[in-house]
Amino acid sequence: MSFLDKLEKPTLLVKPKIARQNIAFMAAKARNQGIRFRPHFKTHQSALVGEWFREEGVEAITVSSVDMAVYFARHGWNDILIAFPVNLRQMKTIDELAGKLRLGLLVESVESVRALTAGLQNPVDLWIKVDTGGGRTGLEWNRSAELQNLVDAIIPTPHFRLRGLLTHAGNTYAATSREEICQRYQTSVFRMRSLQSDLWAAGKGRLEVSVGDTPGCTVCPDLGQVDEIRPGNFIFYDGQMVRLGVCTPQQVAAVLACPVAALHPERGEVVIYGGAVHLSKDTVVEDGITHYGYVVSLKDSGEWSALIPQAYAARLSQEHGILRLPPEEIDRLQIGDWLGVMPAHICLTIAAMGGYRLLDGTDIPTGRSLEPG
Amino acid sequence: MSFLDKLEKPTLLVKPKIARQNIAFMAAKARNQGIRFRPHFKTHQSALVGEWFREEGVEAITVSSVDMAVYFARHGWNDILIAFPVNLRQMKTIDELAGKLRLGLLVESVESVRALTAGLQNPVDLWIKVDTGGGRTGLEWNRSAELQNLVDAIIPTPHFRLRGLLTHAGNTYAATSREEICQRYQTSVFRMRSLQSDLWAAGKGRLEVSVGDTPGCTVCPDLGQVDEIRPGNFIFYDGQMVRLGVCTPQQVAAVLACPVAALHPERGEVVIYGGAVHLSKDTVVEDGITHYGYVVSLKDSGEWSALIPQAYAARLSQEHGILRLPPEEIDRLQIGDWLGVMPAHICLTIAAMGGYRLLDGTDIPTGRSLEPG
Repeated sequence: MSFLDKLEKPTLLVKPKIARQNIAFMAAKARNQGIRFRPHFKTHQSALVGEWFREEGVEAITVSSVDMAVYFARHGWNDILIAFPVNLRQMKTIDELAGKLRLGLLVESVESVRALTAGLQNPVDLWIKVDTGGGRTGLEWNRSAELQNLVDAIIPTPHFRLRGLLTHAGNTYAATSREEICQRYQTSVFRMRSLQSDLWAAGKGRLEVSVGDTPGCTVCPDLGQVDEIRPGNFIFYDGQMVRLGVCTPQQVAAVLACPVAALHPERGEVVIYGGAVHLSKDTVVEDGITHYGYVVSLKDSGEWSALIPQAYAARLSQEHGILRLPPEEIDRLQIGDWLGVMPAHICLTIAAMGGYRLLDGTDIPTGRSLEPG
Repeated sequence: MSFLDKLEKPTLLVKPKIARQNIAFMAAKARNQGIRFRPHFKTHQSALVGEWFREEGVEAITVSSVDMAVYFARHGWNDILIAFPVNLRQMKTIDELAGKLRLGLLVESVESVRALTAGLQNPVDLWIKVDTGGGRTGLEWNRSAELQNLVDAIIPTPHFRLRGLLTHAGNTYAATSREEICQRYQTSVFRMRSLQSDLWAAGKGRLEVSVGDTPGCTVCPDLGQVDEIRPGNFIFYDGQMVRLGVCTPQQVAAVLACPVAALHPERGEVVIYGGAVHLSKDTVVEDGITHYGYVVSLKDSGEWSALIPQAYAARLSQEHGILRLPPEEIDRLQIGDWLGVMPAHICLTIAAMGGYRLLDGTDIPTGRSLEPG
């Protein structure tokens, strides 16, 4: 019975070899430039896959929630940064974690610092979230006075080690070329470094600089004078990264295998069992078309083809995916056949699926599905 | 300790009283018109909530996957229709189910019918999926010849009871007024009835007609001469239904409670812990703005306010939600406070969250989170 014949329903397939190559590439790049590699584990969310990073010498990791920190702490990680503005509602769990391992928290307001001062018994590293242009959250990089206020609120407190400045240059995802990605990454690093200098000059000590988006860390040859990088998506990459030119389709390590449910050759479409509850609904925007992922053929081994030209996931409802395909591809298909969709955004697909299957047959449940609630 | 004080992270809150009122309304409407009420359980996905339907006399249900059918079969439901083009890859599980209960399957091709003929030992009801204008899947309603071919492929087979014609008038979701919803619903029913007549005239017997989208079933006073309706969303309703004018905000039974993580008054925004992995990424389109849900205040009891005017979830990343709020609302907030987001599309939010909490404190895990993989 072939790999594919064992599948019954939408299944996220992962090539371990490609994923390990992607890890090795990023680990070597950081190592060669003397930068700490603190990969974001929100993408793969798996203790087993985490071990692949350990084999590359990784000791410090990033997560995006307290629950994820608890999960990876249980699996032997003892230097964890929660790269999300600290959730004061989980003070008790945070304090317990801080008693067991080196825990990093993200703050961007005096209010949060005060709440942590009052609420924590155990020491933590604090990182200040800086917005260098991403526009999501953090103190804007050019608000030097506010930043100094925040630093001052932290220094006098024995609970805290003010460790550094952290940013996520999310605007690299909206770049239109590799050059622009690199420019945005470099601008972000430049702004972080100038803040660091200002604070040093103001006698606030030497703060570390932590950056790290997958586009910038992949594409820029020189990562700049930073202390650590925190990319996550690069382990698998996805449709958005292909579209941006960050990686080739061959470097993408994951596709969602979906059974064909209906054929509509008259309108150039195929319906698959595989919808928004499987892929989530992030998009790739390309030549004026917004879609939910590229399409590939699947082999019996679970390996997949190059991207099928002119093919994409055009619409999604709860369990249905509507794929646009060229006529000759539709002619080849029968109901019950498999097609692969390379997700627009792999992090959300993994969160939606709650697990994946490696091409060696291993099933990988993720932290979120293992420990719900 | 108040209801709200017990929460720590994004939690989907449900008002059981409103949900039961919504169920009672739809059950009474169907009953009064002599129509079978076969509610879609893909929205709530819970055995416990399913009992609320049983109390209203419901005996037959709709689901959107074989797994969901297995889950509800285990909880005592014995008339289940899987309203998704049959997944031939799950033939064995389908056959087992068919041996235990009255199982309805959806077909739209001779190919599927042949595969089921060869693969099933146990009898099933077959429903033919008809596209009356939704454009998702199904045989187009005006392709009478194809439809007769499909009917002919089914009749000679002892395994199958050809039970009826089924449609989902998904185009009501794209209507711009209650009148238009009703017109689209009526057009869909008219097309189904004319097909039914044609097949009767052609000697194919009296096929049942099954319809059912939440907008049409809620808004149209007269459901028309159909045999059953299958709405699902109406149990909780959501932001899209409010926007369409299908329900009032007070009839919406669910909001996602999210802790405030950061305040950005200078740009009129607040960052909440609550992103795409919680809400999913379906949208409400309103006055040229596309957003991910409305915003409400939460009381200590977990009850929520009317919609905050001019407030919506503007952007989502994996764990972050960026809300736009009027200045006076932001002024009132502190980090760690709670805000509620009324999701754009509750079905996807429930699938993403894997459960919800009733305002009486009961935690409701859903089928998908209980039985992963």
